[in-house]
Amino acid sequence: MKVAEIDTPALLVDLDAMEGNLKKMAGYFAGRKCKARPHFKNHKTPALARKQLDLGAIGMTCATLREAEILVEHGVQSVLIANEIADEAKLHRLAELSRHASVMVAVDDECVFADMARVQRDRKVQFEVVVDINIGLDRCGVPPGEPAVELAKSAVRQGFKMRGIMGYDGHLQSEPPSEARDAMVRKGCNALADSAALIEGSGIPVEMVSTGGTGTHSISGNCPGITDVQVGSYLLMDTRYMNLGAPFCRALTVLGTVVSKRDAGHAVLDCGVKAISGERGLPELKEVRDATLTALHAEHALIDIHPDSSSSIEVGKKLEVWVQYSDATVNLHSRMYGVRNGEVEEIFRIEH
Amino acid sequence: MKVAEIDTPALLVDLDAMEGNLKKMAGYFAGRKCKARPHFKNHKTPALARKQLDLGAIGMTCATLREAEILVEHGVQSVLIANEIADEAKLHRLAELSRHASVMVAVDDECVFADMARVQRDRKVQFEVVVDINIGLDRCGVPPGEPAVELAKSAVRQGFKMRGIMGYDGHLQSEPPSEARDAMVRKGCNALADSAALIEGSGIPVEMVSTGGTGTHSISGNCPGITDVQVGSYLLMDTRYMNLGAPFCRALTVLGTVVSKRDAGHAVLDCGVKAISGERGLPELKEVRDATLTALHAEHALIDIHPDSSSSIEVGKKLEVWVQYSDATVNLHSRMYGVRNGEVEEIFRIEH
Repeated sequence: MKVAEIDTPALLVDLDAMEGNLKKMAGYFAGRKCKARPHFKNHKTPALARKQLDLGAIGMTCATLREAEILVEHGVQSVLIANEIADEAKLHRLAELSRHASVMVAVDDECVFADMARVQRDRKVQFEVVVDINIGLDRCGVPPGEPAVELAKSAVRQGFKMRGIMGYDGHLQSEPPSEARDAMVRKGCNALADSAALIEGSGIPVEMVSTGGTGTHSISGNCPGITDVQVGSYLLMDTRYMNLGAPFCRALTVLGTVVSKRDAGHAVLDCGVKAISGERGLPELKEVRDATLTALHAEHALIDIHPDSSSSIEVGKKLEVWVQYSDATVNLHSRMYGVRNGEVEEIFRIEH
Repeated sequence: MKVAEIDTPALLVDLDAMEGNLKKMAGYFAGRKCKARPHFKNHKTPALARKQLDLGAIGMTCATLREAEILVEHGVQSVLIANEIADEAKLHRLAELSRHASVMVAVDDECVFADMARVQRDRKVQFEVVVDINIGLDRCGVPPGEPAVELAKSAVRQGFKMRGIMGYDGHLQSEPPSEARDAMVRKGCNALADSAALIEGSGIPVEMVSTGGTGTHSISGNCPGITDVQVGSYLLMDTRYMNLGAPFCRALTVLGTVVSKRDAGHAVLDCGVKAISGERGLPELKEVRDATLTALHAEHALIDIHPDSSSSIEVGKKLEVWVQYSDATVNLHSRMYGVRNGEVEEIFRIEH
């Protein structure tokens, strides 16, 4: 199938660009003690997780229990749920998952431990936990140092398997690289490493110290004590990361069809916020220099064609749009067309 | 099942509020010549379309061919695709649909007519078209008056069945009611009615003159010549419409679980932009006075708990969040829990 034959709106991945990103990140971690644990939330595509694992990733990170279930169903043996669970029905599902793979879950509050311990006992499994530490994102997590040690001790007392710690510096992922940003990344990593040492000092082994993402991987990956990095966006590459100078290529676009051109200066594509996220800014047209995407409606993208341009934007033409925010865009689709040289080579299934 | 037992994040509809909205809109159109043709894009839920039709709607409006296919699969006999189609594969699907129901499609450019005529001939059907007129939204549509007449004549020459005209005043839906806004709504309706008269004057009957939405229905529904109004949001009610004084009740929420509370002032819910759209502003907490939702991440909503409040927001508690933009939020879900008195009475299937 040719790209022009794909029903629109559709999610496209440029296979050359995606494979280049895959190899570049694998190359970065090759030979290091610290490894990549890619974030499944970015692509929700088991076939892409498999490619990441085949090139050296030590397991997958995910954001939800449902994502962990999908990964385990697809044979992934080591999964970190980098998020808290505070619901008994979900704990039962987590217990079921634990029979089939090593599934670690973040904890940041012992108020859930009584429920976890009861489910663990009833279901005859042992939960694997990772203490979530707040290193500046100010979302979830206990403070570094003593609070982390206390939570780790409490987890061990409950009979959970303490696998390690994590801290996500999401607030630094979208910062342009600078000495000040890099110093903040290292400060977060050091807070994690120091907390790990304190926990080990109390007699509890810490196998995993997990942090970071695409925007900071080259700093986190060099910090002593960090065992794995939660890289995600590098594979498909959001436009916003490109604009921060990340050394990867944009691979993800949404394909739309021009459905209306009410005059020489205005056209409309059939891809709006139900096909491409505008949550982190307006997307940009790919390979079109003489027109600008100016607004997203529910099912439409509005395009201004620049005056005096010899634009080839005509009704019926299919155009690609770069994706600003890949996580939220992928979430809107159930398949991703893998494209090389204008031909569809593979259709990836996105799982929900 | 009780609300507290629903797996989160989840989409909830308050049945009392939704049924009240349904009856209120039906009451408005009862006894009028002008009828409601509700917009399916809002809820994508065949069971809710059925309720709208049972209470007097003369058919459904939708935004995409896929939505029309879903409606026809569910037995809806009169569907307006209020959008242009400019793709041959889609035209073949539209031809197939035309065998099973009356499906009208918007047209605004005769450059697609040759393809349409060929598909119509090959598939032995007759396409039903509605001339789309730009009444100020500046998205799709031909200008009112002569250009509309010319397009209608051209459609008839191609052998299409000219059913009528439409014009969507989406730019006025989110304007607070005022004399100036109401005058602009009437101006758009008059432009449509005048265009219809001109087309009829050229010997082409115009059965349908369709416009409007929830925010302007009481103006459009009173304008001479308007035959149906594309009301959508009234059923589930976006918060943004509430803030404009629309006479309906909010019925739609997303249910989340508090998964983290790192201190007395900060909590985190497990519903981010993958469960609730932030495209038209941040959502608000329902029935919680002493806390504010301050940010949406991919899978998290961040909550500030007000100082000195005696908040009952604790880890594990489930909270509802009002939806600002129902179209884009419903699109993120595959089911909607119908709730009355804290119990789930019905689970609606959302079709994609």
